[in-house]
Amino acid sequence: MSDDVILALDFGGTKLSAAAVAAGTAAAQEPVWLGEQRVFTPADADRDHEIAQMVQMAEALLDGRQLRTVGISFGGPANFDRGLVYRSDHVAGWENTPLQALLEARWRVPVRVDNDANAAALGEHRFGAGQGCQDLLYVTVSTGVGGGWVLDGRLWRGQRGMAGEIGHTVVDSDGPRCLCGKRGCVERLASGPFLAADALATLEAEPQRESTLRGRSVELTARDIAEAATQGDGLARALLLRSAWAVGVGLGNAANLIAPQRFILGGGVTKAGELWWQGVRQAAQETALSDLAFDIVPAALGDDAPLWGAVALVADL
Amino acid sequence: MSDDVILALDFGGTKLSAAAVAAGTAAAQEPVWLGEQRVFTPADADRDHEIAQMVQMAEALLDGRQLRTVGISFGGPANFDRGLVYRSDHVAGWENTPLQALLEARWRVPVRVDNDANAAALGEHRFGAGQGCQDLLYVTVSTGVGGGWVLDGRLWRGQRGMAGEIGHTVVDSDGPRCLCGKRGCVERLASGPFLAADALATLEAEPQRESTLRGRSVELTARDIAEAATQGDGLARALLLRSAWAVGVGLGNAANLIAPQRFILGGGVTKAGELWWQGVRQAAQETALSDLAFDIVPAALGDDAPLWGAVALVADL
Repeated sequence: MSDDVILALDFGGTKLSAAAVAAGTAAAQEPVWLGEQRVFTPADADRDHEIAQMVQMAEALLDGRQLRTVGISFGGPANFDRGLVYRSDHVAGWENTPLQALLEARWRVPVRVDNDANAAALGEHRFGAGQGCQDLLYVTVSTGVGGGWVLDGRLWRGQRGMAGEIGHTVVDSDGPRCLCGKRGCVERLASGPFLAADALATLEAEPQRESTLRGRSVELTARDIAEAATQGDGLARALLLRSAWAVGVGLGNAANLIAPQRFILGGGVTKAGELWWQGVRQAAQETALSDLAFDIVPAALGDDAPLWGAVALVADL
Repeated sequence: MSDDVILALDFGGTKLSAAAVAAGTAAAQEPVWLGEQRVFTPADADRDHEIAQMVQMAEALLDGRQLRTVGISFGGPANFDRGLVYRSDHVAGWENTPLQALLEARWRVPVRVDNDANAAALGEHRFGAGQGCQDLLYVTVSTGVGGGWVLDGRLWRGQRGMAGEIGHTVVDSDGPRCLCGKRGCVERLASGPFLAADALATLEAEPQRESTLRGRSVELTARDIAEAATQGDGLARALLLRSAWAVGVGLGNAANLIAPQRFILGGGVTKAGELWWQGVRQAAQETALSDLAFDIVPAALGDDAPLWGAVALVADL
């Protein structure tokens, strides 16, 4: 029993990660990590390929030891209660996959599945920047903007597991149009790809505008914009501040609605530096009613948050 | 024991209400109402006057029977966990009043206090339009816009009891300025007094504009605007649709964040008619992600929702 293993699996947008944890330590604050594997998914991978590869990695990590439970983070819409993956926006063939049932049939132990934002929220709550905090919203500001709630110490998933979609809350109804069809969503104003796209569009629309971003245009990323902003580039600063403002208003609205203790922010855009963080905090404070009290802190687990969350999903089974 | 009485008290903005309910029936779906009293508060009333009057009404209703518990709805910020009223925006002297302790000292039974939006949410959940629904947001659109959450069948109050403030979520950051200091809050765009004020301001700014609202200007109310809209008045329709739009976007944002099953809307402005309700539903659907499912229904208990909620606050003690 004491040698039992928990497997934590993360089906990310671009890579698969698996880790083995000593089951007896998973409910503690510092689980014992027995090993991990990561592999980038080839561009032509489909669902069956991903599952086969993940199973291979998992069983290699298991190395003949007794498996107790399996927690899974999935990078796309998934339903914990039904053990179902709705779809992937990155890899073909995932529509309505009963991932829990598939893997329970193979391994004959309890398997739990949740989306990566929920898993990351739970991971940060249990092992990261949310320790000791019962009510929090985790938000990732990356290629998209998503989130997961922990309320009363447990994940709050909402109907169909759809809660936490702060990226598609509207903060500026006259703003630019988002992929979802609406105007002025947080994601449209704050996410990395949109930051880069808006920089390119501005440079093209205003040929006289001076900016150090000009010329590096083709593979421009949010990181480039953050660096240019640090060096004082006006366009880069304006875009970064708009991103921060949108996230801050989104957090302030969420504070007014739910009044959590803490917001935990992760994802690439949060590495943009102090200018961005100050903008987020200022907009959130201005948006939230003055009677509210909360803090806004960086995620502690980085890209591993979903994997830690996968451990947390099954730690108490 | 079977003759025990629960008292439900409602300190409203303009009136005091008290009801007595047969304690043995309060946990059922249809509590037996033994009697009620209402009195309008004089303009010069202060806290001590209100408490004395409420105690008098309550003890008259009690009529010598055994008191079991007392539930209280308060029309202003209050903290359930601490039994505290923070303040009233209508009546002087309420700052930081330990109402629970005051009345427990007098009556020697358990007393519970919550704000009116939370009480109304709980009342609708238990006895009204939220029966059988575990996750809902109750929203009142009246002189202000406030709300209360029931999540997993219980009130979700948040830090300091401040959750549910949908009225001060921002939906149009370029909109007109709200009393809270921000621009484009739901309350600024949707509440009755602001509807009337904006109608007056438009009529004054555009002397040539034709509107049946002109002339009735001084005591113009949201009801007048709703009536004029029904009769086809352009200005009235535009204002009413803007109110509906703001409420709908606020609900859609709340759906994206929390994914409740149901939104229950009460308060004077919700009586504006089908034009308003259609506008709310359309904006909410457009704002919420398409994977979400929820309904938007009228409150069932009307102005009595907080009083029913006061019963529900103590029904299980």
